[in-house]
Amino acid sequence: MVGYAFMGAAHSQAWRTVNRVFDLPVRARMSLICGRDTGKVAEAADRLGWEAHTTDWRDLISRDDIDIVDVCTPGDSHAEIAIAALAAGKHVLCEKPLANTVDEARLMVAAAARAQASGVRAMCGFNYRRVPAVALMRELVASGRLGTIRHVRAVYLQDWIVDPQFPLVWRLQKDKAGSGALGDIGAHIIDLTQYVTGQRIAGVSAVTETFVKERPLPTESSGLAASADGANGAAPATGQVTVDDAAIFVARLDGGALATYEATRFATGRRNALRVEINGSLGSVAFDLERLNELEFFDASEPGAEQGFRRILVTEGNHPYMSAWWPPGHIIGYEHSFTHEMRDFLLAVANGSDPAPSFADGLQVQLVLDAVARSAELGSSWTEVERVPDPVSV
Amino acid sequence: MVGYAFMGAAHSQAWRTVNRVFDLPVRARMSLICGRDTGKVAEAADRLGWEAHTTDWRDLISRDDIDIVDVCTPGDSHAEIAIAALAAGKHVLCEKPLANTVDEARLMVAAAARAQASGVRAMCGFNYRRVPAVALMRELVASGRLGTIRHVRAVYLQDWIVDPQFPLVWRLQKDKAGSGALGDIGAHIIDLTQYVTGQRIAGVSAVTETFVKERPLPTESSGLAASADGANGAAPATGQVTVDDAAIFVARLDGGALATYEATRFATGRRNALRVEINGSLGSVAFDLERLNELEFFDASEPGAEQGFRRILVTEGNHPYMSAWWPPGHIIGYEHSFTHEMRDFLLAVANGSDPAPSFADGLQVQLVLDAVARSAELGSSWTEVERVPDPVSV
Amino acid sequence: MVGYAFMGAAHSQAWRTVNRVFDLPVRARMSLICGRDTGKVAEAADRLGWEAHTTDWRDLISRDDIDIVDVCTPGDSHAEIAIAALAAGKHVLCEKPLANTVDEARLMVAAAARAQASGVRAMCGFNYRRVPAVALMRELVASGRLGTIRHVRAVYLQDWIVDPQFPLVWRLQKDKAGSGALGDIGAHIIDLTQYVTGQRIAGVSAVTETFVKERPLPTESSGLAASADGANGAAPATGQVTVDDAAIFVARLDGGALATYEATRFATGRRNALRVEINGSLGSVAFDLERLNELEFFDASEPGAEQGFRRILVTEGNHPYMSAWWPPGHIIGYEHSFTHEMRDFLLAVANGSDPAPSFADGLQVQLVLDAVARSAELGSSWTEVERVPDPVSV
Amino acid sequence: MVGYAFMGAAHSQAWRTVNRVFDLPVRARMSLICGRDTGKVAEAADRLGWEAHTTDWRDLISRDDIDIVDVCTPGDSHAEIAIAALAAGKHVLCEKPLANTVDEARLMVAAAARAQASGVRAMCGFNYRRVPAVALMRELVASGRLGTIRHVRAVYLQDWIVDPQFPLVWRLQKDKAGSGALGDIGAHIIDLTQYVTGQRIAGVSAVTETFVKERPLPTESSGLAASADGANGAAPATGQVTVDDAAIFVARLDGGALATYEATRFATGRRNALRVEINGSLGSVAFDLERLNELEFFDASEPGAEQGFRRILVTEGNHPYMSAWWPPGHIIGYEHSFTHEMRDFLLAVANGSDPAPSFADGLQVQLVLDAVARSAELGSSWTEVERVPDPVSV
Repeated sequence: MVGYAFMGAAHSQAWRTVNRVFDLPVRARMSLICGRDTGKVAEAADRLGWEAHTTDWRDLISRDDIDIVDVCTPGDSHAEIAIAALAAGKHVLCEKPLANTVDEARLMVAAAARAQASGVRAMCGFNYRRVPAVALMRELVASGRLGTIRHVRAVYLQDWIVDPQFPLVWRLQKDKAGSGALGDIGAHIIDLTQYVTGQRIAGVSAVTETFVKERPLPTESSGLAASADGANGAAPATGQVTVDDAAIFVARLDGGALATYEATRFATGRRNALRVEINGSLGSVAFDLERLNELEFFDASEPGAEQGFRRILVTEGNHPYMSAWWPPGHIIGYEHSFTHEMRDFLLAVANGSDPAPSFADGLQVQLVLDAVARSAELGSSWTEVERVPDPVSV
Repeated sequence: MVGYAFMGAAHSQAWRTVNRVFDLPVRARMSLICGRDTGKVAEAADRLGWEAHTTDWRDLISRDDIDIVDVCTPGDSHAEIAIAALAAGKHVLCEKPLANTVDEARLMVAAAARAQASGVRAMCGFNYRRVPAVALMRELVASGRLGTIRHVRAVYLQDWIVDPQFPLVWRLQKDKAGSGALGDIGAHIIDLTQYVTGQRIAGVSAVTETFVKERPLPTESSGLAASADGANGAAPATGQVTVDDAAIFVARLDGGALATYEATRFATGRRNALRVEINGSLGSVAFDLERLNELEFFDASEPGAEQGFRRILVTEGNHPYMSAWWPPGHIIGYEHSFTHEMRDFLLAVANGSDPAPSFADGLQVQLVLDAVARSAELGSSWTEVERVPDPVSV
Repeated sequence: MVGYAFMGAAHSQAWRTVNRVFDLPVRARMSLICGRDTGKVAEAADRLGWEAHTTDWRDLISRDDIDIVDVCTPGDSHAEIAIAALAAGKHVLCEKPLANTVDEARLMVAAAARAQASGVRAMCGFNYRRVPAVALMRELVASGRLGTIRHVRAVYLQDWIVDPQFPLVWRLQKDKAGSGALGDIGAHIIDLTQYVTGQRIAGVSAVTETFVKERPLPTESSGLAASADGANGAAPATGQVTVDDAAIFVARLDGGALATYEATRFATGRRNALRVEINGSLGSVAFDLERLNELEFFDASEPGAEQGFRRILVTEGNHPYMSAWWPPGHIIGYEHSFTHEMRDFLLAVANGSDPAPSFADGLQVQLVLDAVARSAELGSSWTEVERVPDPVSV
Repeated sequence: MVGYAFMGAAHSQAWRTVNRVFDLPVRARMSLICGRDTGKVAEAADRLGWEAHTTDWRDLISRDDIDIVDVCTPGDSHAEIAIAALAAGKHVLCEKPLANTVDEARLMVAAAARAQASGVRAMCGFNYRRVPAVALMRELVASGRLGTIRHVRAVYLQDWIVDPQFPLVWRLQKDKAGSGALGDIGAHIIDLTQYVTGQRIAGVSAVTETFVKERPLPTESSGLAASADGANGAAPATGQVTVDDAAIFVARLDGGALATYEATRFATGRRNALRVEINGSLGSVAFDLERLNELEFFDASEPGAEQGFRRILVTEGNHPYMSAWWPPGHIIGYEHSFTHEMRDFLLAVANGSDPAPSFADGLQVQLVLDAVARSAELGSSWTEVERVPDPVSV
């Protein structure tokens, strides 16, 4: 694994847990973790349960006893690491967004296609597909229970940078993060809605905004928390915020649905509110990541006087992924979206099948992000989204 | 009053009730109701409590003992009736949307301005401003509790025409209704969010859609319900739907906030879900018309470990309008948004002040509707919204 | 009508409204209202819409043109007025609880039985039976959708006397009110659960408590609000609270279900939270008066992966009472439980049928209240509840 | 560890996880797991991550390199194992309920007291105390934010044996489980409410019931799921259910509060609904285990018009236990109540302090369970609860 911060910790728990919960044909060994700071990566290896550590990601690729490389770095290094790992015959799991630019993503898709020919697998880490309630939404749509999809409304609301004194962490710098709320959390709702509906976003009209344009430089950060320069009373050194704070857009899906999207880090009080509602001609579903064990489902085929949105507690043995967990009603946490991701990835590797979401799926999301950014730059003009030619999993 | 259908019944209950609940300097007498069908209007007068009835709205204007004309007809006749009534010195309450076109709305604003000079009042019936929880939202924003407004997201979701066999009622015909979901329910969320935030929509980028383009002709209708032609087994006669089924748009408010709007009649399972959330730098509010006695409020000035969206049950004596009602916790219904509207209108008439929303407010909404429609026609291009020059109440 | 306070106002709006909304064979005329204070009853008559007023309730009985007497006084005068009115051939609607004691209630049942022989009707005003969601619960149970009832849990939580300085209003005095939370709000959940389940409470074990035993004397009161003596800085005169602040009890229903009940005026933050949940072998329902337009329903016959409590918005035309109201999704308020009560009462009078709940139903509730009070006095000992011999409506 | 079923799996994940998330002075090694079936315990050891396995729990006690014994067996063997382990100088974590009888629990408390003298620690596994929202409730009460506690209402509702064909698993047999819903889930709400309020239950009046008295014998079981005999079409062999299906009781706490409790396995649709509400003179809290990352808090010191129950998402760094986890808004699962339990136990062992809940706390719960059972047998007569003399942690 490369990276040991928020995503590194989340992935590590998943690698530790996956074989303890699921009965799989292969077992993960946590061989080597890589990070830039020797002391910190050593500490992380010890705490997170890795056998060894390094500061050079090429060590992961050169070792023969390593089969899988898990890329958890910021987006600016995804392409280089993933392409090299695939070329060396390592199966690659790459965090989302796939890359910081469409061009990089295209190169990665090409690398994945070459690797696929020799049985090497590549997967893009849109972990929310693995939330059981999201997988159940997908099943309901796929089985026709919602009929023709008419509307999608998806928001991903956070508020961790509402304070203008919150520092300029790497997620607020375009060269490292590619974009702001758009790529970080907007990418999730783009992928999730394409996955659940089985439709792709055909075109968008967008507005983006950077509400706070200058911020103090950071002195330390951890997860999404950070402290700012200037704590000693001196005026802090500041820098320019070069990414969006918020992005909103309307879209048409290629199956005829209308959609609205919003990704923001300025929704005061909404810590991590990924909410999706989908309305079809025969039913509707609604989901909220802050209550990720629940799915609301409206079935219009019920008798009129008994219709209503029902709260399904997605903890039953016949719900996706849940037979491996606790008895009904005992909820699971955010982290196990990753545990399920690792399960599916390991199964694909073991079975010689292609994992989903593919790098092509990741490119498709990247193309939407790019269209949103271009539309926003061009006065919200309608911008069509290129379709990745190869079939993707959505 | 002109009109005796859904809005006629709702306004009638308000006129009957307003003086029974509120202590006002004037009392409403329900003198004369007007409708096109003699039998039906006679029945309505008897049932709804009007002293007399007529089929000619000019009778309302010619009678000296009538001071107020309440216009509850479809939008295509608003301008003619309201302008004539104002010219005759009658105070006018006109249902929303103010008119079917911007041009008509401008004429009505001009008429209201002329009438105002002689102490005659004109009000546009955006009744949801009078929901106590909405008025409380307004107070929270106006008192600065939310800080700088960053985000508005507003939806008005209904589902009464999801069935493609639902007939072609007047609300689905452009010549009568002006537009579809956009003007009928989109107008509400446009006015409501402008009112609550005190900001006007500066520009929009929009998509509209008519999912079902042809429908059977109606044989009878009541409220939002109707029956279709062809019930006897013969193929029903059909007609073209000439309005939008759904409208979605992104917007910028003139105070710097980003906003998303959605109005649709195709959100299966959402009967009347007007939902608004507003995020400011210091707090947020959220409202749902299906739970109109509640307001969710997040106050970011609370200590971190105790922050949360609180559900305020807006039934306290110190909540807007509520001192006149039941003890705390005893909820009121949708209909009393109109009762409160009549209260404010009567107070304005009695006090010689201008009621809000004014016809100018109604025009401002009409200009947004027009910009949305034009943007949708021109490939979602960014479309600025003209500002009504005279100060409006928002 | 006798009484013009909280219940008087609520009943008046119902009498004003019932014929405006429902198409009934008879029309109510609001002839005469009675109250002890001439000035206040005159003001009430004018505001609430009564043709005349009096300070002597016997005037209601002596007038030939009056057919119905509606008793809205405190419980200590119910028996005298109702019995006299029935003897005079007036149909009687009597507010709940039917009386302050079992003995009085027995006399009233006997009077109602005598009156019934000559076609005179008597009804006890448990208005919450007429909330559409409650009536829908009853239908679901009656049609077998819940199977065998296993559990009932019912609470009625208020908080209007949490402040120990809240004054000693009549509802806190045993001679006027009979009991405290028990008879005032406990009576509601007793009747409601017996009605919905169709089972009677067979025995109880109870605890009651008066948390604040002495309070300042009141100077003025309105609805549930009041001001206390001593506002001028002097130590207020105080008096003993002679009723319970809270009552809790466990019970067995005669159909085999277990039940818990709680009635309190000390549940801080719960303004008017009447909540009922019923679990049967095939399904469950849950209701909350603060969201009285909603019913939660769990149907265990659904496929396992799709089961969940569904929120039915009880505003459809095929829901009890709702065809007369607004389109789906437009909610109604607390007050219309009374409007529906008057509808059913008028229909019974017009059709010559017995209205429900009967005085016998009222007595059955009174017997439960009495058993609860006795159990609490005798160290929570199990106390069986006498069954009213004549068939009652539950 | 002894036991490898539901609790064994839950505790194993906690032992695996605790040092990966929390920075502690000691590290857990998962040395030896014990179970009665060699094949199954071998499989469990491999899957759950234990170094070795045995079928004789005495092996745990005889090994010098084992410091801690975690008892996850059914209640009938708790006393024997725990007392032996303590006598051998092993720190003991014992699952709840502490024992099947008061007498056994007394012996265990005595053993724990003897062990304490030589620095050996004993803890009873009421894991729900470690849910962050529950710990936050405790903090709010302890800091006086709720004022004087007036009411407690606690339910623990499950529905896994509603089907009368569900087999007679060990949890339905008195000799193995001690009691039914009462000891299994009732024990949780008894301990939780005593812990949060800091008050002990002083007396109870109870009703218990066994709705289904005979069930098919089981053939296989896992977690709370099981299959029944007779699947091959033959009439299944059946046996008597010897425990309660449901228990309800009213109680007085020693600080003056009234309380209602309900534990049942027959609440159709409620999978694992542990719900607690506590009302104090200054505020209230409400909690639901199915949404265990949330706490509702009502603060009566807020201005009247802004009061409301606020939903605190208990995922902030300054919430109990949460600084070790994910960024705000990223929820955790049921299982980490155990992870937190192990953290606190390890800290107590490392720091030489007494962990809570102690065995005395466990005995106190056992005394309540016993009083409930006796009251139910004696016609719900009021039954006082003996107080454990030594100070306990509640």
